[in-house]
Amino acid sequence: MQRQVASAWHKFTRTNRRPYLFSSSSPSYNTNSNNNSFLKTPQILGLDLPEIWKPSVLKKTPSSHNHNAEQTASVIDGISIAEEIRSGIAQEVSRMKNAIGKVPGLAVILVGERKDSQVYVRNKVKACEEVGIMSLTADLPDDCLEDEVLCAVSSFNENPSVHGILVQLPLPQHMDGEKILSVVSLDKDVDGLHPLNIGNLAMRGREPLFVPCTPKGCIELLLRSNVEIMGKNAVVIGRSNIVGLPTSLLLLRHHATVTTVHAFSKNPDTVTREADIVVSAAGVSNLVRGSWLKPGAVVIDVGTNPVEDPNSEHGYTLTGDVCYEEAVRVVSAITPVPGGVGPMTVAMLLSNTLDSAKKAYRFT
Amino acid sequence: MQRQVASAWHKFTRTNRRPYLFSSSSPSYNTNSNNNSFLKTPQILGLDLPEIWKPSVLKKTPSSHNHNAEQTASVIDGISIAEEIRSGIAQEVSRMKNAIGKVPGLAVILVGERKDSQVYVRNKVKACEEVGIMSLTADLPDDCLEDEVLCAVSSFNENPSVHGILVQLPLPQHMDGEKILSVVSLDKDVDGLHPLNIGNLAMRGREPLFVPCTPKGCIELLLRSNVEIMGKNAVVIGRSNIVGLPTSLLLLRHHATVTTVHAFSKNPDTVTREADIVVSAAGVSNLVRGSWLKPGAVVIDVGTNPVEDPNSEHGYTLTGDVCYEEAVRVVSAITPVPGGVGPMTVAMLLSNTLDSAKKAYRFT
Repeated sequence: MQRQVASAWHKFTRTNRRPYLFSSSSPSYNTNSNNNSFLKTPQILGLDLPEIWKPSVLKKTPSSHNHNAEQTASVIDGISIAEEIRSGIAQEVSRMKNAIGKVPGLAVILVGERKDSQVYVRNKVKACEEVGIMSLTADLPDDCLEDEVLCAVSSFNENPSVHGILVQLPLPQHMDGEKILSVVSLDKDVDGLHPLNIGNLAMRGREPLFVPCTPKGCIELLLRSNVEIMGKNAVVIGRSNIVGLPTSLLLLRHHATVTTVHAFSKNPDTVTREADIVVSAAGVSNLVRGSWLKPGAVVIDVGTNPVEDPNSEHGYTLTGDVCYEEAVRVVSAITPVPGGVGPMTVAMLLSNTLDSAKKAYRFT
Repeated sequence: MQRQVASAWHKFTRTNRRPYLFSSSSPSYNTNSNNNSFLKTPQILGLDLPEIWKPSVLKKTPSSHNHNAEQTASVIDGISIAEEIRSGIAQEVSRMKNAIGKVPGLAVILVGERKDSQVYVRNKVKACEEVGIMSLTADLPDDCLEDEVLCAVSSFNENPSVHGILVQLPLPQHMDGEKILSVVSLDKDVDGLHPLNIGNLAMRGREPLFVPCTPKGCIELLLRSNVEIMGKNAVVIGRSNIVGLPTSLLLLRHHATVTTVHAFSKNPDTVTREADIVVSAAGVSNLVRGSWLKPGAVVIDVGTNPVEDPNSEHGYTLTGDVCYEEAVRVVSAITPVPGGVGPMTVAMLLSNTLDSAKKAYRFT
């Protein structure tokens, strides 16, 4: 059967031979060396283009073949898995406190008055409290100077009771976020987003000090659901520095055949339909329709997209990247939104902070 | 036609629903918190397994459908493209010398008496000479101390006439290669293999100081052959720190939909057959057969595998990863081995050294 598919596919592609790859709009090089233009190749790094999903992709109607099918998917319950992890962390923190009289400390830097950021920070502080991790918050006004933020970071860097430092993003526009993040001590970068850490995550034979929280949460969900990763086709939709990229790198470390799909992918649906494991982190509501998914696939939906909803208390509800109602009829397992990856991210932050404290105190 | 394929494919996969992803051999977690085993998750980073291609993959016979077809591929001539680049570099070096009385300097550290390493170093020194780049070589015996190598690196780090430092790999087994490489000043890491550099290559919005030479050479070949990369399906076979990984990251920066195939990929042939652009860096002779390739694809063959050949002067000939005779009948363009990527790697080393010197002298 597979052979049939391959040959049908061959038939299709053979008609499209050769010229379509060679585009006259590609960057052209003047190989006449007089003006040395061939040495000026900023193109080598590619252009940093905005990640905008085309409406044509979004409008694709779902195939109807599964509309009447019943739900086949089991639901991967992020809330209860995260709860288990947090309860284990609480026990470890208590063991540490009893043994050496110390607890892990997490410092959070919040700049400005964004409502969503305030909620995220409050949730993290509350999660710390629940497991016995000490939390410190530096609350700076929107119009503070970059230097004040840098100063807050430095002070936490030097504070031996602080084992993890988190700069809540996004920062106000007048600040150089990259500069601020790069001042965070590597030993306390519990977010795992320092480029050296990402490099060590990417390279074989090396190990990052911390695995970024959301990607780590995704892999935990797969591992704890006994999903085999090695040799499987994994598609990661989205390539952000925070989620998509490190998730791809982590799945590769688990020996999946990893494909990264993004807003410039020509046929994201066709590519995704080949995947045994789909991690969607595009940040686009209902991007992934049932027709994008291979029957039996496992889906981790990282998207948490606010969608207007006048009936809801806050005026909006959160939806994932995946059209859940369609997906549950096709796939074998899926995370809900909310209640899937979200709780795992916070649990992994606590877990990284605990690990950091254990390292600092040489407590095993 | 595409729709037909998709539905045939659906038929195939629907029969294989659900259970095959859930393996009892997957790492299982004891979620009973008494022994805290769920906090000990070394699995989160995956196991560092050796990259051995299964004989079953290698033995796959090529499909016969193209055996009688004629050659359709144009040959991407790495020798002449590299020559153009080197000639441009020579002009720039000469312009620099005339303007400020300085030339770029490349230092090469060679440890031991490996014949192949000696040849590589000799070639690099010769290439430097030809474009006017000053080269220095530290030639250390096989049984020297790690400290002596570190000392050589430090001395080159401090030498203002040196703008690039290259530690020829592999180092003798008794040395910690990672440690030695990490001592090379980031500003002089013209190989671009420092994890911070790889992190900056991987992350959007960031830029590495140097793009690793062989991946940079591959992209140059594509760009100079006017191959469109954006939105195309690219498959990179192999995931080494030196070639496969950074090539995947670089293609992603060019907005290709990138899939990384490796020794653990279940159907490397099927996956590769979806690619518009194939970069093979597996280091396995004749791994990629004609039947692995989509008609019209563009192939960059990084493999340089010595294969025994009693008729040759040195007792061996170099072959690529790709079965060239089969591939030229299927694809639209391909690099030969030798004469493809090889000469580009050296040209990119010179180009990175020139860039480094320009930065050091603020020469534009």
